[in-house]
Amino acid sequence: MTKNGRVKVGIIGSQFEADIHAAAIQMSPHDVEVVAVASPTPGNAAALAKRYQIPRVFTDYREMLKEPDIEMVTIAAPNWLHEQMTVECARAGKHVVCEKPLAMTIAEGERMIEETRRHGVLLMYAEELVFTPKYVKAKEMADVGAFGKVYLVKQSEKHFGPHSAWFWDMNRSGGGAFMDLGCHGIAFCYWFLARSPITSVYCQMGTHVHQDKTEGEDNCLCILEFANGAMGLVENSWARRGGMDDRIEIYGDAGVTYGNLHMGNALPTYSENGYGYAVEKAPSTQGWSYPVFEELWNYGFPQEMTHFARCVRSQETPAVTGEDGLVVMEALYAGYASAGEGRKIHLPYRNTNVKRPIDLWLQASSAGNGSAAKS
Amino acid sequence: MTKNGRVKVGIIGSQFEADIHAAAIQMSPHDVEVVAVASPTPGNAAALAKRYQIPRVFTDYREMLKEPDIEMVTIAAPNWLHEQMTVECARAGKHVVCEKPLAMTIAEGERMIEETRRHGVLLMYAEELVFTPKYVKAKEMADVGAFGKVYLVKQSEKHFGPHSAWFWDMNRSGGGAFMDLGCHGIAFCYWFLARSPITSVYCQMGTHVHQDKTEGEDNCLCILEFANGAMGLVENSWARRGGMDDRIEIYGDAGVTYGNLHMGNALPTYSENGYGYAVEKAPSTQGWSYPVFEELWNYGFPQEMTHFARCVRSQETPAVTGEDGLVVMEALYAGYASAGEGRKIHLPYRNTNVKRPIDLWLQASSAGNGSAAKS
Amino acid sequence: MTKNGRVKVGIIGSQFEADIHAAAIQMSPHDVEVVAVASPTPGNAAALAKRYQIPRVFTDYREMLKEPDIEMVTIAAPNWLHEQMTVECARAGKHVVCEKPLAMTIAEGERMIEETRRHGVLLMYAEELVFTPKYVKAKEMADVGAFGKVYLVKQSEKHFGPHSAWFWDMNRSGGGAFMDLGCHGIAFCYWFLARSPITSVYCQMGTHVHQDKTEGEDNCLCILEFANGAMGLVENSWARRGGMDDRIEIYGDAGVTYGNLHMGNALPTYSENGYGYAVEKAPSTQGWSYPVFEELWNYGFPQEMTHFARCVRSQETPAVTGEDGLVVMEALYAGYASAGEGRKIHLPYRNTNVKRPIDLWLQASSAGNGSAAKS
Amino acid sequence: MTKNGRVKVGIIGSQFEADIHAAAIQMSPHDVEVVAVASPTPGNAAALAKRYQIPRVFTDYREMLKEPDIEMVTIAAPNWLHEQMTVECARAGKHVVCEKPLAMTIAEGERMIEETRRHGVLLMYAEELVFTPKYVKAKEMADVGAFGKVYLVKQSEKHFGPHSAWFWDMNRSGGGAFMDLGCHGIAFCYWFLARSPITSVYCQMGTHVHQDKTEGEDNCLCILEFANGAMGLVENSWARRGGMDDRIEIYGDAGVTYGNLHMGNALPTYSENGYGYAVEKAPSTQGWSYPVFEELWNYGFPQEMTHFARCVRSQETPAVTGEDGLVVMEALYAGYASAGEGRKIHLPYRNTNVKRPIDLWLQASSAGNGSAAKS
Repeated sequence: MTKNGRVKVGIIGSQFEADIHAAAIQMSPHDVEVVAVASPTPGNAAALAKRYQIPRVFTDYREMLKEPDIEMVTIAAPNWLHEQMTVECARAGKHVVCEKPLAMTIAEGERMIEETRRHGVLLMYAEELVFTPKYVKAKEMADVGAFGKVYLVKQSEKHFGPHSAWFWDMNRSGGGAFMDLGCHGIAFCYWFLARSPITSVYCQMGTHVHQDKTEGEDNCLCILEFANGAMGLVENSWARRGGMDDRIEIYGDAGVTYGNLHMGNALPTYSENGYGYAVEKAPSTQGWSYPVFEELWNYGFPQEMTHFARCVRSQETPAVTGEDGLVVMEALYAGYASAGEGRKIHLPYRNTNVKRPIDLWLQASSAGNGSAAKS
Repeated sequence: MTKNGRVKVGIIGSQFEADIHAAAIQMSPHDVEVVAVASPTPGNAAALAKRYQIPRVFTDYREMLKEPDIEMVTIAAPNWLHEQMTVECARAGKHVVCEKPLAMTIAEGERMIEETRRHGVLLMYAEELVFTPKYVKAKEMADVGAFGKVYLVKQSEKHFGPHSAWFWDMNRSGGGAFMDLGCHGIAFCYWFLARSPITSVYCQMGTHVHQDKTEGEDNCLCILEFANGAMGLVENSWARRGGMDDRIEIYGDAGVTYGNLHMGNALPTYSENGYGYAVEKAPSTQGWSYPVFEELWNYGFPQEMTHFARCVRSQETPAVTGEDGLVVMEALYAGYASAGEGRKIHLPYRNTNVKRPIDLWLQASSAGNGSAAKS
Repeated sequence: MTKNGRVKVGIIGSQFEADIHAAAIQMSPHDVEVVAVASPTPGNAAALAKRYQIPRVFTDYREMLKEPDIEMVTIAAPNWLHEQMTVECARAGKHVVCEKPLAMTIAEGERMIEETRRHGVLLMYAEELVFTPKYVKAKEMADVGAFGKVYLVKQSEKHFGPHSAWFWDMNRSGGGAFMDLGCHGIAFCYWFLARSPITSVYCQMGTHVHQDKTEGEDNCLCILEFANGAMGLVENSWARRGGMDDRIEIYGDAGVTYGNLHMGNALPTYSENGYGYAVEKAPSTQGWSYPVFEELWNYGFPQEMTHFARCVRSQETPAVTGEDGLVVMEALYAGYASAGEGRKIHLPYRNTNVKRPIDLWLQASSAGNGSAAKS
Repeated sequence: MTKNGRVKVGIIGSQFEADIHAAAIQMSPHDVEVVAVASPTPGNAAALAKRYQIPRVFTDYREMLKEPDIEMVTIAAPNWLHEQMTVECARAGKHVVCEKPLAMTIAEGERMIEETRRHGVLLMYAEELVFTPKYVKAKEMADVGAFGKVYLVKQSEKHFGPHSAWFWDMNRSGGGAFMDLGCHGIAFCYWFLARSPITSVYCQMGTHVHQDKTEGEDNCLCILEFANGAMGLVENSWARRGGMDDRIEIYGDAGVTYGNLHMGNALPTYSENGYGYAVEKAPSTQGWSYPVFEELWNYGFPQEMTHFARCVRSQETPAVTGEDGLVVMEALYAGYASAGEGRKIHLPYRNTNVKRPIDLWLQASSAGNGSAAKS
């Protein structure tokens, strides 16, 4: 295994997230390069490979794991495959970058940590908000005392529903908007508050708009309590029209700040004719729109991949790990349980009686006390 | 009692809210005029009277109630005095405009409704958000279907703490930021959703910044469920720096809107020298600030007073009544109880074991399950 | 003629501006009421009268001027009719409120001032920006020194072209976007700078988009110099997509402020379905839009009409007069001359060789030195 | 001279701009590295070298030019030194990156182009707006037709005055805010309009605030005409309070867009305590402020340096050259002449009777027709 030069990467996946990985790595040519991609559907991996000049293409990721020069594998596959893939990567001696959420169940996440640890590879958790430049600035300000003691951290991510069919299928995703997007907010608050332990979670969930598509929640309000006395408020939706929306607010006894990644970073634009691309999930580029620029960089994806590559080279220490992902998993479980029971769930929380996190809500709310599953 | 011409008004109070009443009425000269003011502290009522050319001044409001030409009395006194004053106004045959919240306890609110009904006078509840032009526009858009089915209404009011000592004293106010400001948000959501009954309330409360000043909560996150399946998210704070902040967000399956009364209506301004007035509770007018213009009009106060006067003349029907205020009171109780118990409280809710709404939180949270009273 | 009570008003016109007058007056019931409307096209005046419950309708405004109880007439007719109507109003002893610009030529404006003075009636110039609450706030801040010495005042009004055919016809309007909209900006700067005399004007004009509709300029950049050393920058367009846009910026040695009447006052909104009304000249209410609220009030129209009525009652002194309108006319002439000659034109400026202000540009620019008339 | 690997760079200068060069290059480790820095003041170059781990330090840049491995030299020195340094770099066979404006006089700029051409080295002009991501997005939208035919391009850069003494000294800078900042706006409009030739320039200049510090203009409004019929409006100021401000607006017959690099990209923040850094030339971080993030990247500096390095490697073709800088110089001359004469100056324009561009204004305006030099 080479110890110098660019870290050689294999990507598992060929769709939305895999594309982001490839594009982000291409933006960091000094530290990292993609040498292979694996995806089961014939043609998909090849298409990605062509788009990004990736030399090697596989339909079975296990074959890819046999390539000796690959040092790091990024997993851009549905939630229910994360564990199995991570375990196999670990056994093949590859460092792992796993997309969010870490896994479908807590037990899976625990096995991922255990296996990667056993085989001495890094398990890096791809929470990009920790690298988002605007949010990093907010954290830097907080850390030098701009806001005094921070007592409330808010993060919100909303759009009108995911791009791939598996997100809507609870058997493959494990949960809805809270699982898909809330994992960002929970990780953000936890990171922003310097990993003060989460002590309780409360969620209000509902399926308000997409009942025809999913049994999952398409909207969630989540309140977190932290051991240091601060709160988090995480809002997520698959039912917000108008394109992607990602925001934070930070409140302290000495100040406040507002960060808006999309409308707050964009060029307010009116166009009769439309144009190529405004923002992820934008409904149209005609009429008024809010185009963003250098979207991947503004999310922090190339910074994230650079960082992970430097971790592989031992130049940096992982800023977000499997352990962070597991904290998020526990909060996701507690959140679904709270929505089901209509009460705050205290952490630590484990429940091994359900196959999918969302069952904690769906099964309990049918009993009538929690958030209405359907409205 | 005159039946035509301008409605003659007496104001009880002489401070912040009384000043708003007098100023707002002066902006509606066609429909209403202030003819008297009553306040126990010698000099206070006289000062207000001088500022607004109010001819008659009383130190005992009971004396004012004897004036036969006064048709409508506005109560701008601390919460714990609302009931007593309303009852006496009703007995004197005066229509009542009562400041928010309606009362300190549900029982008091019930008696206010009962007494005014018995004496055939109107009990009008001074919730100005129902008249706030920007928010009225949002409601008009919702009502013609701009957002499709509305599933989430958010309202937030935040500043760094109230202007009068009695707000901080729970024996005179009954509660903290939730009682003081949350009553606006609850009323707003309820009105926006066409008075769909509130079915549950959940609150996360804490005293994060002002522990030295009050045992009341200085921050609250409140989630409401409504019978029509929609939710409300009400955020309130006495711990947000930078001047008054009042916002709404409306989410429906077909759209979304954002209304910001302060920064979103202001002239972003930089001044080395400062200037007269930026906005309620603004810390400074030097450096960057967000001055608002015609603040009372933008809140809807003159529109509110005009409306109430027209109600007295039977030209309009009260848009917000004591019954609305009582719904808010019930939600406030449920909110404090939920914060105390760490669970969603279903409505209808009554609890006659406490003297003050906040006791439902303070007494229970000391038992350890609910929101931390102190952080 | 009554000397107390509401001022009785007759409106000449029945279209866009006449509707604004009627609506604005209806919002000021204490001070003023519309009792008559006159418009030559059969049915038009009647329609307006029905909409606003105006009791008397005329097709010949001269007949309306015979009504003895009418004290004030508002002229909402095309530019080329202002002088004739004003003169007849004056002879009938009616106070005049004349829409902007004051007239089509300087000579006409001079006669309007002379005739109204001779007959002892007020000539009030309907420049509403002087009453626009957001802009009034900026002036108040400036006047207490917020910005120190103001050296630059900017005002910009832009949309995609006027609502009535006569604006596009230079024989009836006298000029294009600069004449139609620049009169606002010139008046605003002049008023903001406490009527410091205008010493020079420079304009860059062009017909960039609407060559098929008009020989008038559809875009203009105008630089004004004032005797006190300050500058004005006035931007106007009939070629800006996306709905009405009206903004100011004020720069001084000690500060700066930004006022935006439309996007800066609106509720950013996304709607799949659309809704009733967003803002004047908005292209659509579907997709993203910026609805404003209480548009007339935010422009200052009811405040303006209230003020003019109080002037008729001698309770106030006109804030904008025919003399102000004449200053604007002179600057408009100088602006067209400067665009024609490609140089700064110093004031005072008179040119009696042209029938229409725009000829100063059109005739000269065909000679080749000034702004390109067609691009 | 190496032909592969990272381009080795020497920096002339040690202050504000030199620091940006070093930092930007450090952000592009794949393509470029700084190996030397030269500055005459003892200690200054060493301090920069220490900050960025630059191995070689010189007090005489001529000594640095003898280093055989240096391939590219960036000139971050006052305007009056650009020509001499460029000529010596060219003679030493080094590619040149020259800071804006290209030179102090047109004649100097012409010699720079001639000498670099003769010696077969690249003369790259460091206009970073061509790399600014937000502005690049606007250009991409324009190029796919989002705005239809673009008829007006606006760019504005304003702050409260430069950081180094030489800017205020016209003998070393050649001009004031227009020379310092207007060169950006002219280059931006020219680039945005695909290098359509500039056909005329008109400027309104004044020294409104800093008469005690400089004879240069501290405020300028500049109108450009282009051969394709479009206009540019460039606004610059050393007299705008509140921190750096950089904006664009693009108007076409089919649309409009607004780009704001600072307030429009920032986190609106209130802080009692302050924090490290908000934005270039920000007056304070206490109270309300608008902190930006990753400022260099958002300006496009690392992208610019990467591009220039790739040009040295013949992988890309220079996006901004000495010829572009010379076009800007000509427009600067014409601008000063127009301010002096009070009329539009047509291009091509040459004037060899003045030592400094600003003399075209200062000498003529003392004659009384042009922009008042002092207000």
